[in-house]
Amino acid sequence: MTVATYVNPVPPTRGTSYADVTEEQQRVEQTLVDKVVGSFDSCENPRLKELMVSLVRHLHSFVRTTRLTEEEWGAAINFLTESGKITTDVRQEFILLSDTLGISMQTINVNNRAYKQATEATVFGPFFVEDSPEIELGADMSFGAPGEPCWVEGTVTDTDGRPLAGARIEVWEADEDGLYDVQYDADHRAARAHLYTDIDGSYKFWGLTPTPYPIPNDGPVGMMLDSVGRSPLRAAHLHFMVSHDACRTLVTHIFPSDDPIGPGDTVFGHKDSLVKDFQRQPAASPTPDGRLLDATWSTVRFDVVLAPVDA
Amino acid sequence: MTVATYVNPVPPTRGTSYADVTEEQQRVEQTLVDKVVGSFDSCENPRLKELMVSLVRHLHSFVRTTRLTEEEWGAAINFLTESGKITTDVRQEFILLSDTLGISMQTINVNNRAYKQATEATVFGPFFVEDSPEIELGADMSFGAPGEPCWVEGTVTDTDGRPLAGARIEVWEADEDGLYDVQYDADHRAARAHLYTDIDGSYKFWGLTPTPYPIPNDGPVGMMLDSVGRSPLRAAHLHFMVSHDACRTLVTHIFPSDDPIGPGDTVFGHKDSLVKDFQRQPAASPTPDGRLLDATWSTVRFDVVLAPVDA
Repeated sequence: MTVATYVNPVPPTRGTSYADVTEEQQRVEQTLVDKVVGSFDSCENPRLKELMVSLVRHLHSFVRTTRLTEEEWGAAINFLTESGKITTDVRQEFILLSDTLGISMQTINVNNRAYKQATEATVFGPFFVEDSPEIELGADMSFGAPGEPCWVEGTVTDTDGRPLAGARIEVWEADEDGLYDVQYDADHRAARAHLYTDIDGSYKFWGLTPTPYPIPNDGPVGMMLDSVGRSPLRAAHLHFMVSHDACRTLVTHIFPSDDPIGPGDTVFGHKDSLVKDFQRQPAASPTPDGRLLDATWSTVRFDVVLAPVDA
Repeated sequence: MTVATYVNPVPPTRGTSYADVTEEQQRVEQTLVDKVVGSFDSCENPRLKELMVSLVRHLHSFVRTTRLTEEEWGAAINFLTESGKITTDVRQEFILLSDTLGISMQTINVNNRAYKQATEATVFGPFFVEDSPEIELGADMSFGAPGEPCWVEGTVTDTDGRPLAGARIEVWEADEDGLYDVQYDADHRAARAHLYTDIDGSYKFWGLTPTPYPIPNDGPVGMMLDSVGRSPLRAAHLHFMVSHDACRTLVTHIFPSDDPIGPGDTVFGHKDSLVKDFQRQPAASPTPDGRLLDATWSTVRFDVVLAPVDA
């Protein structure tokens, strides 16, 4: 069957750049932009109209300034089609695309404006789940996931330095093989938990020293990264989501200072203010809670500052 | 299972517009754009690099100027995900999206520059197939598809008025129920054919008087059109693809002048220069080839002018 090749076989006009475009041709192209923009005139939702008009203007500008060929347009359609095919309930290629083009991080930036010394936000990622187990302060969130134990402690305060008691902290991370629990089995829960700060705003728990891992790179996004010479590696990180009634919810990570990936993080989530010193400890050295571990472990401090809810 | 909601539940910062953005915040956002652009520095394909950098700049500008909320970002991810799910070998939601945002038409414009009095190009659409049957001059391309018979005739010349003998003409159209052959069955062939111009550049064939029809609108694109108050109807049209060694291949339509949809064509393919007068003829009036039809029929003339191959 030869139905529906979908790609116009017409050879593109070669060697054109935007500077060569005649005034008559610019008029033809601008007339079309105006017509498409005008097609949203009767949209009754003003925000939807604003978004569609802006999207149309930006996409048309992209096509016109790059003089996109019909072959390249076809490649873009195929890229989206293949991304749709590989996407499932536990594999989200469109989020990976947004992440690797920095769109996810920019959306986070736009919605979490810098406010005084409040802790910076970073990408949410596709591996959060809503039903993480609750743990006591000082307990272990790894639930047997493989990796080096890491003692994590700190405080949660507001931007005036007041401790926030009962703040909810969600933590989740990949194991030392670079996989989250749900990547083994959608119902598996390990290396994730939630806990609440003490009356003085402090918290502590056992997790795993974070290690770098590649984003899933056997699909169109992996092919794109490869084609442009980019690494699929995420900087090592530990996810936090911290919430309290009086404050803006914070979604962030912390990054080990000795991770060589660091600023090369393929989803642009790495921020200098979120780099923390994970101090390596020898085997059998006493832990803060008086245990003796038979292998190396680490410790890190992360003091969280939440912005007011209306920041 | 509650795994992977994928949408950040953090409430967005409300009431922000680009004018309110502080210089510090603008610096944070621009730094990210620069970083993403820089990630393509080692791309060895200069054209791919140009496209990725331009795409990133345009998409980030969209997010920043609209102050896209995290909820809206999530809606966009869901839209693409649903578009992927409904796309098959014979249903292409991403092309429909490109078509209804005028991106397909703009790509055609960019690659088919206006040249002297050459016939204008328009959208290719998803219903072309490569193995159309060949017909003789004056034969019927409908192959039993339902609709009013239409006698189509004209010439193919170059921009200096020289007739082009042996030019290949592909023609295809929907039937009076608004469906193409392949929408009934991928292997069905009707209301499509190819033929070659005579020694004097002339051509003639029987087809169907075109009628308007909706694009497939039971998916995300249909929902988008509905949300913004737009019609899913395409203006009535008959597809042509005309090629000759010495010329730029032309992909175009002709549109009946009495179709009320006309300029409201939902894929922006309608152009004034492509509107033709389809003259309605009474039943039993003699046809150009001496037949007597027992129902009404129409006739239309379309003289095609091809640009040089290097236009």
